[in-house]
Amino acid sequence: MIDPLNQLLEFLAIPSVSADPSHKQDVERAAHWLDNRLSEAGFAVEVVPTTGHPIVYAEKQVDASAPTVLVYGHYDVQPPDPLELWETPPFEPTIKDGKIYARGASDDKGQVFAHVAAAMQLADDLPVNLKFLIEGEEEVGSPNLVPFVKEHRRRLAADVVLISDSPMFAPGLPTLTYGLRGLAYLEVRLRGLARDVHSGAYGGAVPNAAHAAAWMIAQLKDPMGWIRIPGFYDDVVPVAPEERAMWARLPFDEEAFKAEVGAEATPGEPGYGILERRWARPTLDVNGLGSGYQGEGSKTVIPAEAFFKFSMRLVPDQDPEKIADLAEAYLREILPEGYAMEVIRHHGGDPVVVPTNSPPMQAAAQALEEAWGRETVFTREGGSIPIVADFMRELEAPVVLMGFGLESDNLHAPNEKFDAVNFEKGIEASKNFLRLLPMYLKGGSA
Amino acid sequence: MIDPLNQLLEFLAIPSVSADPSHKQDVERAAHWLDNRLSEAGFAVEVVPTTGHPIVYAEKQVDASAPTVLVYGHYDVQPPDPLELWETPPFEPTIKDGKIYARGASDDKGQVFAHVAAAMQLADDLPVNLKFLIEGEEEVGSPNLVPFVKEHRRRLAADVVLISDSPMFAPGLPTLTYGLRGLAYLEVRLRGLARDVHSGAYGGAVPNAAHAAAWMIAQLKDPMGWIRIPGFYDDVVPVAPEERAMWARLPFDEEAFKAEVGAEATPGEPGYGILERRWARPTLDVNGLGSGYQGEGSKTVIPAEAFFKFSMRLVPDQDPEKIADLAEAYLREILPEGYAMEVIRHHGGDPVVVPTNSPPMQAAAQALEEAWGRETVFTREGGSIPIVADFMRELEAPVVLMGFGLESDNLHAPNEKFDAVNFEKGIEASKNFLRLLPMYLKGGSA
Repeated sequence: MIDPLNQLLEFLAIPSVSADPSHKQDVERAAHWLDNRLSEAGFAVEVVPTTGHPIVYAEKQVDASAPTVLVYGHYDVQPPDPLELWETPPFEPTIKDGKIYARGASDDKGQVFAHVAAAMQLADDLPVNLKFLIEGEEEVGSPNLVPFVKEHRRRLAADVVLISDSPMFAPGLPTLTYGLRGLAYLEVRLRGLARDVHSGAYGGAVPNAAHAAAWMIAQLKDPMGWIRIPGFYDDVVPVAPEERAMWARLPFDEEAFKAEVGAEATPGEPGYGILERRWARPTLDVNGLGSGYQGEGSKTVIPAEAFFKFSMRLVPDQDPEKIADLAEAYLREILPEGYAMEVIRHHGGDPVVVPTNSPPMQAAAQALEEAWGRETVFTREGGSIPIVADFMRELEAPVVLMGFGLESDNLHAPNEKFDAVNFEKGIEASKNFLRLLPMYLKGGSA
Repeated sequence: MIDPLNQLLEFLAIPSVSADPSHKQDVERAAHWLDNRLSEAGFAVEVVPTTGHPIVYAEKQVDASAPTVLVYGHYDVQPPDPLELWETPPFEPTIKDGKIYARGASDDKGQVFAHVAAAMQLADDLPVNLKFLIEGEEEVGSPNLVPFVKEHRRRLAADVVLISDSPMFAPGLPTLTYGLRGLAYLEVRLRGLARDVHSGAYGGAVPNAAHAAAWMIAQLKDPMGWIRIPGFYDDVVPVAPEERAMWARLPFDEEAFKAEVGAEATPGEPGYGILERRWARPTLDVNGLGSGYQGEGSKTVIPAEAFFKFSMRLVPDQDPEKIADLAEAYLREILPEGYAMEVIRHHGGDPVVVPTNSPPMQAAAQALEEAWGRETVFTREGGSIPIVADFMRELEAPVVLMGFGLESDNLHAPNEKFDAVNFEKGIEASKNFLRLLPMYLKGGSA
């Protein structure tokens, strides 16, 4: 049997950059590479063409009475730019100090392939019916995934959806993610004049869209982090004391966090810890802002237009549509006189929190604990993985987020890496989970 | 004698674009073209090389006891871009409906050449000693002009400095400008993080430079136009009731003003009219603002950096240096915690107001009145012409701003034009002024 690590290196050498049309053949090559591995492992595989990149779907039925697990992941990767900052070439996977350096090593080829390798190793001893849904468009917004899921609800039916595309809380600390924030994203375009005018000749008597944008942003969120949209907090479920106590036990180092992002302060809502503010409190952040002269030096112009884009991260039970409505109504209320405003709604996503005491989560916790030899911690994530809510809704199945990566894996950045030990233990954890799940679902405990 | 209009068309055909290095020879050609015209008119001319484009200096001494007038102007022009918006080519001067279309027609070739043509027509009957200082770098910030003026104070000595590089208040309405606003220009650069971070993973716990910029801008000026920098208004000289009454008699049409700039409102300090707000009240306008993602669609990033540039238009007796100091101190006071700030000072300029009842101004008023057949109005301008304060300081001479252009001349824009009638009457007014000035300076009146 071929060493899974060498197989992973082969997988990582394929530059399956979904965003770059010149890599279209490479993306397809990666899909067929997976097809070959899964076929070798005895799966019935289909490489499903889409209007974009193909979806790899595979299944192996072992026993109609056994539970069914659907593993979701993606085989496409981020573009490797800026190339000059890589210490080793992004598509020449290199192992150094126990770390596998390559684009896609952690996001998500290494993590999804841990499950494929587990299935290969279990071979005929597979204790569950296993399905793989591995897409090639995650890094470009998964345009074809939800339509595929909706169309193939029955075929994809599963007792548990298993996803490994997230980080562990700390190196060596097995982690299950049980919550994700949702998202509402709006863009505001303001216009106060038909054209830019001279700030000398007109200053004092005409609207200035840059100021209007600033006034509005200042009224959206105050410097203490409080969001001033009426009704914004109405549906926020407070964190239970037990949950807060659980987070307090996590090895979180505020100084290390500040050093990591290069921040001198960690401003935010008073009375909430940093983890709670990132995981369980809704936020509003301007992501882009522009008006007037953008070049070097000075130009004396009153800008006719301004724009700002902002994302709101949502928590249960906030509804992205309702929040976007509230935000838009407030924007219209605070719009200063003399400006035309256009509000554009970009993508959104539902917040998700799943119980940590469900049988699949408990099985996953034990599976990780056996692999790493440490008690599994339960964390939330501040980001959004919209497909999680989609799976829960469309397949009516619980989702287990079992991350093998690390925050320090340089996702979407140069020198992406994946610790070889996490790959090995990921395979082990995957096998453990498939073995333990049937027992937990039956109400047993290992 | 050659028709001055045909000579002007020849002058306008030279693409003397000072900002574009590929036009360096053309700029020089325009200088020599002026040299030839002024030499033909009996002037001693020098084309003075600088590190940039040459300065044309000419003088004609008629009588040691006669007053001396220094005419300042510029022979360089703005770049013609965007070319596709010109209805006739910018450097193929075209007369249509009594208007001369060409880059530089109004700014400033047509206006300065009116004075050259006047001197040519007066020939040996020149009633004053006349000097011309015509630079080729006005559109690139006049880097060599003030050093030249300082170095040649004696040679440039004059009883009056005459400048035609400004608009009349309305078509057919002879106008003298007796006030200009000053300028202080600052740029603020903020940084809250070492790098952009994901708005999901970090939102709620890290600084966001876009918000900091917005909060600060919102604290610089409120939506009513009030500037909140402590001490900002301390040195502002209020407008006298007579001056305000004089402006009230000007044919100003607020609806036409709004239509011209495409504004639905004319926000500004309550209790002040639009002209007073543009001419005699200080202002603060953000000229450029940027942070984070500038592209189409959405990107979920918390920007590490933000910048904003703002200009403050100043009125007597505000001092640009003092105002910049006050602004910088206030910026440091309102800077939110967790951000590093850099403040860059760009160019400034002193505000200027000259008496309207001085002999040169009265001579100019009569000169214009005789040419246009209407009473001359006195106006201020909202913009800044820093060289005016420099002339007043270095040459200790009064400055007369006798504009022949119109607000609608499309300065710095496609389809720049100059009304042929204003060129003709400008020549006449120039001759009138040179004739009337000696009498007014002697205390007489025509």
